[in-house]
Amino acid sequence: VFPFALPIRVRFAETDAMGIVHHAAYLPYLEAARVEYLRQIGHPYAALREVDGVDFVVVGVRLDYHRPALFDEELVVRTGLASLSKARFTMRYAIERAAESIATGETRHAVIDRESGRPARVPAWMGDVPLVG
Amino acid sequence: VFPFALPIRVRFAETDAMGIVHHAAYLPYLEAARVEYLRQIGHPYAALREVDGVDFVVVGVRLDYHRPALFDEELVVRTGLASLSKARFTMRYAIERAAESIATGETRHAVIDRESGRPARVPAWMGDVPLVG
Amino acid sequence: VFPFALPIRVRFAETDAMGIVHHAAYLPYLEAARVEYLRQIGHPYAALREVDGVDFVVVGVRLDYHRPALFDEELVVRTGLASLSKARFTMRYAIERAAESIATGETRHAVIDRESGRPARVPAWMGDVPLVG
Amino acid sequence: VFPFALPIRVRFAETDAMGIVHHAAYLPYLEAARVEYLRQIGHPYAALREVDGVDFVVVGVRLDYHRPALFDEELVVRTGLASLSKARFTMRYAIERAAESIATGETRHAVIDRESGRPARVPAWMGDVPLVG
Repeated sequence: VFPFALPIRVRFAETDAMGIVHHAAYLPYLEAARVEYLRQIGHPYAALREVDGVDFVVVGVRLDYHRPALFDEELVVRTGLASLSKARFTMRYAIERAAESIATGETRHAVIDRESGRPARVPAWMGDVPLVG
Repeated sequence: VFPFALPIRVRFAETDAMGIVHHAAYLPYLEAARVEYLRQIGHPYAALREVDGVDFVVVGVRLDYHRPALFDEELVVRTGLASLSKARFTMRYAIERAAESIATGETRHAVIDRESGRPARVPAWMGDVPLVG
Repeated sequence: VFPFALPIRVRFAETDAMGIVHHAAYLPYLEAARVEYLRQIGHPYAALREVDGVDFVVVGVRLDYHRPALFDEELVVRTGLASLSKARFTMRYAIERAAESIATGETRHAVIDRESGRPARVPAWMGDVPLVG
Repeated sequence: VFPFALPIRVRFAETDAMGIVHHAAYLPYLEAARVEYLRQIGHPYAALREVDGVDFVVVGVRLDYHRPALFDEELVVRTGLASLSKARFTMRYAIERAAESIATGETRHAVIDRESGRPARVPAWMGDVPLVG
């Protein structure tokens, strides 16, 4: 049901002394998947800023960890748009290793005007992005 | 209502190109506060492993970001125990800058046996830890 | 002159409040390139531990930063073996963006026995790895 | 011989799957010590930018790792000015755990004008900072 998947190889720096990927290290994975998905649908970061004149601010995150991931493993980070309102939107994620679920979660974002930093409208094109089921 | 507060100075490495503390950088703050709180009530990490024979695994995190924090600012990370069951517990957090709320959230933890890695009981002393309101 | 090159896309979490890639963020890039190079020449990390019975410990790093890199840029991390002795070796690196040099450096490694943690000999196959010019 | 020392408690997020502090995690320690030292001698970061009108860019780093550090250990990061020229300076560091040396190193910095980003002169007050022996 997710429209996009980014393969990610676990770096050693992302592991911790329990021998697994540290729970904070998943947030940059989600961010990377989000950025690549937007690029794939025609909205790379530079265009968000220069064409749309906006920035996306992270206002919330929720992550549930199901299984540990290890150094050098190949993960897949699936993502898609979960919901949107006038000035905010939510992305949903599933991190998998082959058929196993490693983690699932969401990030919530506010749109701000790039110049003023004030709340701004979600770009119109985002209304056409399919929602994940 | 939080029984413990850890002061933290924002490091430059924790900021991002929006000029603010990156949203992932808060998770190590929560972790540091959790570790210091447990130390203060007589249960440093080494004792968890050697006396109680357990490890605490992060199984979930939820964080809401209210205001950006900047490089070199002094934050306070408040924490306390929110709830506990036989094999799991939840910690609650509030990150503040003077009287302002920067972020609030929770982490959920499973207890595992240090040797076997299997689910284990929450240590008995945790039943005496006061719950945050 | 470098036998291997790993493309890396800059993540937002790796930038800092000066708007550029934080200088510490390059070390995981070097590490990722080192791991991929060893995999490519037939020695993935798991084999180092299970076949050779060794671990590689970082005992030194030197990095010179020539130009800033920015969020979302595509970099290339080139690497190769610079020198080796009985129990140590040095890897060399060049980080580039198209034809521009972003950074150059070296990491020095000691070989240790995986079980005992004591100094061990560099694996024999490493004697056949070509040195960078 | 170092004029300043910053105590640092190792965070779990800074460890890796070898059970020790990851070699990249030391760079933010050096940075934190550098910032605190400058604050102590009357030049907090905000003043560098607003009074002196400059930023300090990291142009090189060298670090030698002598002993591993572990989660929850208390380290001390000593620092001082090693040398300076018209537009650059070098800071030296020693990371210690009680009487043991964990790591030693240097960072090299270029001074840039905060507005233009162009090379600028080292602030005059830096000429009065004592050099480490």
